Amino acid sequence: VRAVDWSEDHVRLLDQRSLPRAVVYLEIHDARSLARAIRDMAVRGAPAIGIAAAYGVVLAARSAYRADPERWRDRVEDDMRDLAAARPTAINLKWALRRMRSAFDRVAADPVPVLLAEARAIHEEDIAANRRMGALGAALLADTRHVLTHCNTGSLATGGYGTALGVIRSAFNAGTLESVYACETRPWLQGARLTAWELRQDGIPVTLIADSAAGLLFKNGRVSWVVVGADRIAANGDVANKIGTYGLAVAARHHGLGFMVVAPSSTIDPGTASGDEIPIEDRGADELLRYAGTDVAPPGVAAWNPVFDITPAELVDVIVTEKGIVREPDRNKITALLGRPAD
Amino acid sequence: VRAVDWSEDHVRLLDQRSLPRAVVYLEIHDARSLARAIRDMAVRGAPAIGIAAAYGVVLAARSAYRADPERWRDRVEDDMRDLAAARPTAINLKWALRRMRSAFDRVAADPVPVLLAEARAIHEEDIAANRRMGALGAALLADTRHVLTHCNTGSLATGGYGTALGVIRSAFNAGTLESVYACETRPWLQGARLTAWELRQDGIPVTLIADSAAGLLFKNGRVSWVVVGADRIAANGDVANKIGTYGLAVAARHHGLGFMVVAPSSTIDPGTASGDEIPIEDRGADELLRYAGTDVAPPGVAAWNPVFDITPAELVDVIVTEKGIVREPDRNKITALLGRPAD
Repeated sequence: VRAVDWSEDHVRLLDQRSLPRAVVYLEIHDARSLARAIRDMAVRGAPAIGIAAAYGVVLAARSAYRADPERWRDRVEDDMRDLAAARPTAINLKWALRRMRSAFDRVAADPVPVLLAEARAIHEEDIAANRRMGALGAALLADTRHVLTHCNTGSLATGGYGTALGVIRSAFNAGTLESVYACETRPWLQGARLTAWELRQDGIPVTLIADSAAGLLFKNGRVSWVVVGADRIAANGDVANKIGTYGLAVAARHHGLGFMVVAPSSTIDPGTASGDEIPIEDRGADELLRYAGTDVAPPGVAAWNPVFDITPAELVDVIVTEKGIVREPDRNKITALLGRPAD
Repeated sequence: VRAVDWSEDHVRLLDQRSLPRAVVYLEIHDARSLARAIRDMAVRGAPAIGIAAAYGVVLAARSAYRADPERWRDRVEDDMRDLAAARPTAINLKWALRRMRSAFDRVAADPVPVLLAEARAIHEEDIAANRRMGALGAALLADTRHVLTHCNTGSLATGGYGTALGVIRSAFNAGTLESVYACETRPWLQGARLTAWELRQDGIPVTLIADSAAGLLFKNGRVSWVVVGADRIAANGDVANKIGTYGLAVAARHHGLGFMVVAPSSTIDPGTASGDEIPIEDRGADELLRYAGTDVAPPGVAAWNPVFDITPAELVDVIVTEKGIVREPDRNKITALLGRPAD
């Protein structure tokens, strides 16, 4: 499964809003539509958003170059802003746009070949990073039979394979991991709709739980690690991830379980000093108040729907990146990690 | 609003499965239908289940007496067993049946007048207990502006007024409490469907959150107390309540917030030594896998759906009953409380 891909002359997105009911692809030919697809969560997951935005820059530059070959760099700016503003929390989006912009310097005439090559490089490097993280994380789970994961961090959330779900895939393929518990992940139900769908396709045993059942799961000793992804990691190791991650980290620590964050180094933002500086997206009441066209709550009820939270570094046992692992993360260790070449 | 009531010659239940979409009443004339209504959650909430079961004994005894006036006590046993088995975790059900059975001794001929009076007494005492708990709990919240509650513990879950929601009502009416956050309470959405509906009718400001957003809510300092009900309290003060309560208690302690359990003394079971002995009902996968007739997850995915969890006494700051409050509950304090007359 590829959540996002370049297909001849356009971007092809697997519409994650329709899963698991239907497998529908969106064929996207302009940057504005791509920004809308990110905003509306046709594509989601920090690394997948970054890759989609990179391809979006190719679409933007092509359109700008066709309109005015001399001034495409100016004309592309509106689309760049539009892409950058599509989702606020995941840093991979801004990282991918910065990296695409740095490739502008290498463009002589038609920007498409250079930028498409750069976007493809971002995409392929992400898959390679996932594989590397899979191996590193699986080694940490060598004695672990059952884990809990949250949200969706698999092929659908990345260039392919996955971050936390990549570690789970590698640990299962290594023959050590036996099964996965997955939080359904309200309100968007990424766990029920996407993680369950991916794991079944791979034949990895998965059991869904309500997000609020994690405490009892831990108390009953059913899992020994919680393995999650990240949307942004601050320079001090604080982790922004799907709403609920923080509560899982607090409960994991209370029960003495391991808490592992798996993310490519592009998720670490040296420009964000701590979690306090990370903007938390609020997606509005509707995701809580309606489901499948049906009112869940009385019409007009107020709802607070922050879709990410911040887990402080001191609750994280290990961060796994393609550059290596960081145990008990802090500012110095994160700085040292970012200075390393890929592991 | 009355969730359960005796109406002339039968039991009238407000069907909570239809709320908030529609206000539908079930007219129930036999104990078997009443047991089914409890099992299928047309009526839910530990105290309301107890009251409904008490009225169910009246229906059972009436039918048994009509069939055989001499041997109604034998003929009623099947229905008593059926009622007792309808839900396993809430102790109020068994408590109400025991109390109804003790009234059998006072029956000379037709059992209906005596048993109906006893069921009505159980019902009225529950409402009085709620009012008393409301006053006791509101006094503890005199300096509190915002609280979080879980599940539904209001008029719909009791004889009327509510346990935790009764305290919230009293604190709001006292002019101290300003607003309530309510967990939507997966999988059955009691918070979104029932608590939001009740609080709006009372004009108490309510904001819904996903269950998993409680951690961020606490971290942001938005509430200073968590106020919940209970389905069974063990002799040592361990509390069985709606799934997710335990995670809220762990997170509340982590953030230094108060954690209050509000329940009538009929919820305390001296015969249950600790939380380890409380059976946790598992309601099967469907509540997680389908919503409003739509598949949420891929068909056939496994799910674990325990609908209660156990909060150990050491995470409970105070238990509020109609007999008085117990701070930092333990076996001795609970025993002393049960020995007291009503406060």
